[in-house]
Amino acid sequence: MLTRSPDATEHVFDKATHVAPGDSQWSGHTSDDYWAFIGPFGGATAATMLHAIIGHAQRDGDPLSLTVNYCAPIARGPFDLDVRLIRANRSTQHWSVELTQGGEVSAFATAVFAIRRPSWSHQPRQRPDATSFEQTRQYPKSALKMSWVHQYDFRFVEGQPVLDGAPRTEPASPFSKLWIGDTVPRQIDMLSLMSMSDAFFGRVFHVRGEMVPFGTVSLTTYFHVDAEDLRTEDIRQVLAIADASSFHKSYANQTGELWSPGGRLLATTQQIAYFKV
Amino acid sequence: MLTRSPDATEHVFDKATHVAPGDSQWSGHTSDDYWAFIGPFGGATAATMLHAIIGHAQRDGDPLSLTVNYCAPIARGPFDLDVRLIRANRSTQHWSVELTQGGEVSAFATAVFAIRRPSWSHQPRQRPDATSFEQTRQYPKSALKMSWVHQYDFRFVEGQPVLDGAPRTEPASPFSKLWIGDTVPRQIDMLSLMSMSDAFFGRVFHVRGEMVPFGTVSLTTYFHVDAEDLRTEDIRQVLAIADASSFHKSYANQTGELWSPGGRLLATTQQIAYFKV
Repeated sequence: MLTRSPDATEHVFDKATHVAPGDSQWSGHTSDDYWAFIGPFGGATAATMLHAIIGHAQRDGDPLSLTVNYCAPIARGPFDLDVRLIRANRSTQHWSVELTQGGEVSAFATAVFAIRRPSWSHQPRQRPDATSFEQTRQYPKSALKMSWVHQYDFRFVEGQPVLDGAPRTEPASPFSKLWIGDTVPRQIDMLSLMSMSDAFFGRVFHVRGEMVPFGTVSLTTYFHVDAEDLRTEDIRQVLAIADASSFHKSYANQTGELWSPGGRLLATTQQIAYFKV
Repeated sequence: MLTRSPDATEHVFDKATHVAPGDSQWSGHTSDDYWAFIGPFGGATAATMLHAIIGHAQRDGDPLSLTVNYCAPIARGPFDLDVRLIRANRSTQHWSVELTQGGEVSAFATAVFAIRRPSWSHQPRQRPDATSFEQTRQYPKSALKMSWVHQYDFRFVEGQPVLDGAPRTEPASPFSKLWIGDTVPRQIDMLSLMSMSDAFFGRVFHVRGEMVPFGTVSLTTYFHVDAEDLRTEDIRQVLAIADASSFHKSYANQTGELWSPGGRLLATTQQIAYFKV
């Protein structure tokens, strides 16, 4: 996949997260299909950076964690990805990726990859209850102009944002439970799972009932399955949970969980984001 | 503080997280007072790396997030800290720190610092209920030989680990609620808050009722207060919550919250850790 050219039948997500191979220096290109306020959708950027590691000749095992720091808006166009294997042992690898434009770092990622050996398995909690994806009403995205939102099929079970009226006088709950799938259905792999872990609306929009200036500053996602587990799940949607616990001095956090329809916890995520209110 | 030599009246935590200044290359030394299984306590390592950024001449603002990847056991003795300002704008700075011994990277950190401007403030949840620090029984640490454990005054309100009997036949809850303070009381600052965010026992010990091989691989902590807020709180203990949601193929996660006695959410944290069962 890494070496072939994009073609017309390729999924829009694969086009957006395509990387052209190099030695340690790879290149990518922003996608107008996944555009947010003032730059590309952070989930697509994170998936592209992860893609550059997955495609690296020295890569062994599957992603266990990825942290992305968004340093500056990424301009429309090409960017370089400088991939570095920081340290490796028999079963884990530590990587860093710098995304640069004109020599300046716009995003910076660190990742842990692991060959995950069989062990005792335990999932303390059950998947939260929810109406099925098919039975849940599609989120009407007509009011939102950002292209990335249109690449996802959001179906809120709880905590759908209300953004078309007056701002709330009392803060609403930051909690949401929703199904997320690609609008053009695509089997979920590590890359799309990474992207979906950032596919929540800013919690500040939910709480205040209005859009305000907002941007993720740092995002960390942990994978609780490996690529083989995920292929076995063979799914096109995840049940996603998002919440927040602090909005203070211009920054707010967000926590999230991504569950398979069958009840497996696939990934957990947290991020810290800037807001202006 | 950074430039003075350690003295006899200095708190053991300040000695352990001391860094000797350099240009971008700093040096530190492991502390026998904060020793874990096969290397220094990860919280002290994280605080030491944070210390090197805080002391850097170009540093502006306060820590907002710190991610530490633990790549390999750190050997007893000195280490170098290579601090790099990756990108900065008017109100945020992105940093990286490499901890090396003999030229090899043993730990790697990325941090975001911010000048946190006043904004709308909102904390959706209240501090969890708990008996006060004074009214809660001290955790008896006599069974645990690791020195770092003895530097903390743990007082479990809920979910105290049971490690002195037979392993459990059914998994216990991974949830704990406890007070954490320095054994020799010390006003909590950004450094000790960082260290305390890693001062939980492995969730796998709680769930299985036994000690097993365990090590944090990646840790991320978000600060929901700045240094001024923390000075105003003027506290010596935090109410801490820890939980986990997945143990699978040799890795498990942990989520945590650190609250001030007065009810303020100071920091949230998550980590992914290796275990062998």
